[in-house]
Amino acid sequence: MDGFDAATRVERAGTEHGLAVFDADLQPAWRVEQKLNGGYLLAVLARAAGEVAGADHPHPVTATATYTAAPDVGPARVGVQELRRGRTATQLRARLVQDGLPRAEALLTFGRLDGEVWWDDVAPPALAAEDRCVLIPATSSGRSVPLLDVVHERLDPARLGWASGRPSGHGEQRGWLRFADGRDPDPLALLLLVDALPPATFDLGLGGWVPTLSLTVHVRALPAPGPVRARMRARLVAGDRVDEVCDLWDDAGRLVATGHQLAGLRVPPGAQPPPRA
Amino acid sequence: MDGFDAATRVERAGTEHGLAVFDADLQPAWRVEQKLNGGYLLAVLARAAGEVAGADHPHPVTATATYTAAPDVGPARVGVQELRRGRTATQLRARLVQDGLPRAEALLTFGRLDGEVWWDDVAPPALAAEDRCVLIPATSSGRSVPLLDVVHERLDPARLGWASGRPSGHGEQRGWLRFADGRDPDPLALLLLVDALPPATFDLGLGGWVPTLSLTVHVRALPAPGPVRARMRARLVAGDRVDEVCDLWDDAGRLVATGHQLAGLRVPPGAQPPPRA
Repeated sequence: MDGFDAATRVERAGTEHGLAVFDADLQPAWRVEQKLNGGYLLAVLARAAGEVAGADHPHPVTATATYTAAPDVGPARVGVQELRRGRTATQLRARLVQDGLPRAEALLTFGRLDGEVWWDDVAPPALAAEDRCVLIPATSSGRSVPLLDVVHERLDPARLGWASGRPSGHGEQRGWLRFADGRDPDPLALLLLVDALPPATFDLGLGGWVPTLSLTVHVRALPAPGPVRARMRARLVAGDRVDEVCDLWDDAGRLVATGHQLAGLRVPPGAQPPPRA
Repeated sequence: MDGFDAATRVERAGTEHGLAVFDADLQPAWRVEQKLNGGYLLAVLARAAGEVAGADHPHPVTATATYTAAPDVGPARVGVQELRRGRTATQLRARLVQDGLPRAEALLTFGRLDGEVWWDDVAPPALAAEDRCVLIPATSSGRSVPLLDVVHERLDPARLGWASGRPSGHGEQRGWLRFADGRDPDPLALLLLVDALPPATFDLGLGGWVPTLSLTVHVRALPAPGPVRARMRARLVAGDRVDEVCDLWDDAGRLVATGHQLAGLRVPPGAQPPPRA
């Protein structure tokens, strides 16, 4: 099975309409049911953008993607335009195209992640030890999430009631994430991992998938080797949409990335939020 | 003095390279010191994008801007490309150009804000009554913030110590915002207001301005008439950058917008965060 680096590989294919163009090959392992994961697509876009940003600005610092049409597994092209090259950062836009149809569009800033933490207001989550958390299977209840075969997700039992029909009512997922093949996290991987947990709305008793409209990720530090601690929280469910914030800490307990996404969500008529356990 | 609607006015000027092009005229009142406010620029981009999105999708639902070069006061052009028109949303990108130089680039989704709140995990801030909060002046200590003449900001005394050299150490700004001319808030105005408070880092004893690298705003509901309650919090100061989240509630206490921005920040050598008051 191909790992993350192979699945995000891009190859320069020339220049079209002023954009640097790259060939990519979207891999089936990175799907949630039939759809390729939005964080994976953002990582592919960022991999191509990073080729243009170059060695002076090697790390994605912030990236936002909007998803216009779900791509299929298989060949795709990424076009990258450099918007500005500055001393400390390069700003770019990138577009994923398949069969002539734009599938995702992103704005990205690349720079260098090398500073120290000066002040932090985001405490790491209360989280059971990794070996007391529950590995969620790639197939259960007729649902297939191939992504869970390449990203091992061990969820905190205190927030896992939704899997047996007893959501905690906190609107929260939390657990430990690792690549199944042992690859350590890096900034590119954080763009995926910030979108890898099951929807926080499962913990509110809403079982449907929530299609991402827009995903923003701020990468704040180079992650230490080892697993990543993740916590995703729903903030507001209103008007057929939900916004969710996912924070990632590395194995040294340092906040390394934050994702904030807006997603579509249809609440079934008459559904009520569960009381908080 | 021109109000917000006049300051964000755009006029269709034709089509160039497949983009719908609009003329705008950036107004000096919307500056912070010499720089035009990033939220104002996002509102101008969204005003043009909204012209393309049209009446079926009248409201900005999510928008992200990256700022490539500070624009000057005066004429500018906005180019808008429709990325996808769906049943419930239209996705677009927009670019602000002045003197042939791109100044800001945005991804936006327009739709309709008409749903009810189903679940909310973001409690409104403890906030002194508006008439007990302190109107911050447009000019003080040699600093000029023309924006404060068009957006009246009354800040909570409990978080105003920074103005007299005693930051609370919470990394928070909170207060009441109103347009000076009495205009009520709407979704377009929320794009500005989410970026209108002084930097949350002032409350950490860091007095420098923080240039926005990327600003993402999720607009969640149509605001009721009246003032907007705002709370902006720093989350992590690290590696010459800070990310700040700003939530806005309308006068009915409903969460109407959330901004999440990444900004540049140089911490002076030897500076220490103040203890929390």
